Amino acid sequence: MKTRAAVAVEAGKPLEMMEVNLEGPRKGEVLVEIKATGICHTDEFTRSGDDPEGLFPAILGHEGAGVVVEVGEGVTSLEVGDHVIPLYTAECRECEYCLNPKTNLCQKVRATQGKGVMPDGTSRFSMPDGTMIHHYMGCSTFANHTVLPEISLAKVRRDAPFDKICYIGCGVTTGVGAVINTAKVEPGSNCVVFGLGGIGLNVIQGLRLVGADMIVGVDLNEDKKSFAEQFGMTHFVNPKKVEGDLVAHLVELTGGGADYSFECIGNVNVMRQALECAHKGWGESIIIGVAGAGQEISTRPFQLVTGRSWRGSAFGGARGRTDVPKIVDWYMQGKIDIDPMITHKLSLDDINEGFELMHAGKSIRAVVEF
Amino acid sequence: MKTRAAVAVEAGKPLEMMEVNLEGPRKGEVLVEIKATGICHTDEFTRSGDDPEGLFPAILGHEGAGVVVEVGEGVTSLEVGDHVIPLYTAECRECEYCLNPKTNLCQKVRATQGKGVMPDGTSRFSMPDGTMIHHYMGCSTFANHTVLPEISLAKVRRDAPFDKICYIGCGVTTGVGAVINTAKVEPGSNCVVFGLGGIGLNVIQGLRLVGADMIVGVDLNEDKKSFAEQFGMTHFVNPKKVEGDLVAHLVELTGGGADYSFECIGNVNVMRQALECAHKGWGESIIIGVAGAGQEISTRPFQLVTGRSWRGSAFGGARGRTDVPKIVDWYMQGKIDIDPMITHKLSLDDINEGFELMHAGKSIRAVVEF
Repeated sequence: MKTRAAVAVEAGKPLEMMEVNLEGPRKGEVLVEIKATGICHTDEFTRSGDDPEGLFPAILGHEGAGVVVEVGEGVTSLEVGDHVIPLYTAECRECEYCLNPKTNLCQKVRATQGKGVMPDGTSRFSMPDGTMIHHYMGCSTFANHTVLPEISLAKVRRDAPFDKICYIGCGVTTGVGAVINTAKVEPGSNCVVFGLGGIGLNVIQGLRLVGADMIVGVDLNEDKKSFAEQFGMTHFVNPKKVEGDLVAHLVELTGGGADYSFECIGNVNVMRQALECAHKGWGESIIIGVAGAGQEISTRPFQLVTGRSWRGSAFGGARGRTDVPKIVDWYMQGKIDIDPMITHKLSLDDINEGFELMHAGKSIRAVVEF
Repeated sequence: MKTRAAVAVEAGKPLEMMEVNLEGPRKGEVLVEIKATGICHTDEFTRSGDDPEGLFPAILGHEGAGVVVEVGEGVTSLEVGDHVIPLYTAECRECEYCLNPKTNLCQKVRATQGKGVMPDGTSRFSMPDGTMIHHYMGCSTFANHTVLPEISLAKVRRDAPFDKICYIGCGVTTGVGAVINTAKVEPGSNCVVFGLGGIGLNVIQGLRLVGADMIVGVDLNEDKKSFAEQFGMTHFVNPKKVEGDLVAHLVELTGGGADYSFECIGNVNVMRQALECAHKGWGESIIIGVAGAGQEISTRPFQLVTGRSWRGSAFGGARGRTDVPKIVDWYMQGKIDIDPMITHKLSLDDINEGFELMHAGKSIRAVVEF
């Protein structure tokens, strides 16, 4: 079949709209009509050429929602008409990782996904001239139709709006999940969140959801304050306005340090501050942001020996097929907010504008509707 | 009263044997006759002058066992004749730290202990000429008699030999406790232990105790192999004999990485190797060794984001008054070994020889008997 897609033809170039060829689903695969997709920093990381593992040409996008159009041989958990959210972290429920309750990093399709192909080693997408187009993060949601492995799709309720729940495919789950699954924050905790972008806001609402006491947001941009307060932030700290050491200020503000701190920027210096503002004895610091290639974090080991722990979170520690439908329910029940974070709506033809909005810091999330 | 002690008169000098003045116990304090004391690297760290917080003159020693001789006003949990192990990490059972199940770092006497004095701000020890002598780590076990806060003493069974259980005051608890309390290692785990000195051997026997499957010891000294095997080591790796990358070798040997790794040396480069050989998705690395002042650990944040966690352990995460008596029981029941680790016995007069044995790498633990 043919479908319309925004293709990243070359690193650093704007995406190009075109009709691409899409083969139907093979064994264990599913054809999905994408109804909406968010534009995430990770897409931009690859588009720009900064991602050393980026492959081109590719159809980017990994934060989508849509409807099952066709299922391949052997697919048992999904049928035509099901509403689904694509998962860049699959959940096979049978690999060593899925069977270990400590991790969500299913390895079943990891290797082929990293190579931009389906599990059988081939791509379903090609250019009008027949040139192979790579899949991206196993999702490729910047296309009106895409093919995914069955284990890379979360089945969700049919009454949830695509243009909102697409954000659960990445940002919402990454932030809320880091609180619930990775840190397992207890009610009454004092927490510090570094960076009030899309991820940080979702960490904040995750903290509100689990009943944290103090939710301190840290950002250089004063304009973020009132918006973050809508999602549950109780205290705002602008490092530019702190006299003296930021870490000491945060330790004092939280009465001895954060029970949990979250780095949502990808800045290795901030990662150190996030660790060091954690409470002696029990504070945990969770890295969510993705640092530039080759960058390193450092601290004195004394920080750990005196009881702090340093951890990370990918896709919010969520097992997608199991946890994503629950988060969709929470949204529908009003336990979490998404609507105010979707600041811009675009058509596929205007997708490059979404990247510009991101660069200008004007959007929390721009969503493309098909 | 007068008592014999080995006094660290000046940084970098051998200890000097002398009769010192010792005041009796004040409110909440206890006078203990020390029967045996181990000589630990931490004593040497201070004696040598490397410890930037070292105070002189001082009576070092923090790994002892003895008998209660006199109790001060208000002491309720101990009486004359009780056998006790001094605790450099107190357990008051009422501070914010003691009441938080995530930590063992009681803060009740922390500040005064760091200043080399009792909780009331004064020292019980003085030189023959009246000069004040500092207490050390709240213990000062290099004296035939010493005074400690009640909350810094673990009461233990009376049939346990002092010359063995003194080692539970530091080394044994630090190693075994890191496995049980800090890492909470599950049966069947694959583990890697860096450094086969006194701490590493106790980590190894802690791993044997909890039913770990693979217990890999890593040391540059081939002679450590057979000794460590006595305590439960199942595999030995000498980094000098590994072709290529040590971390890659350990990941392969453990079938994907260590479920738990332990750094028992105090070398920041080894701390990085210990983290990076931990299993993707769930591996935890525990820092036990104390690094030199100002040294830092580093890694790529990707190591944490993909599921490894970096933690530390002090005094094996043990709450001394609660946990040390249990470890004494385990020793008496034969669940853990101590006897083969006590490689040398000395009199107080020969204590400087104990430091020489340590430097020469000839002792696991030298114990002074009074």
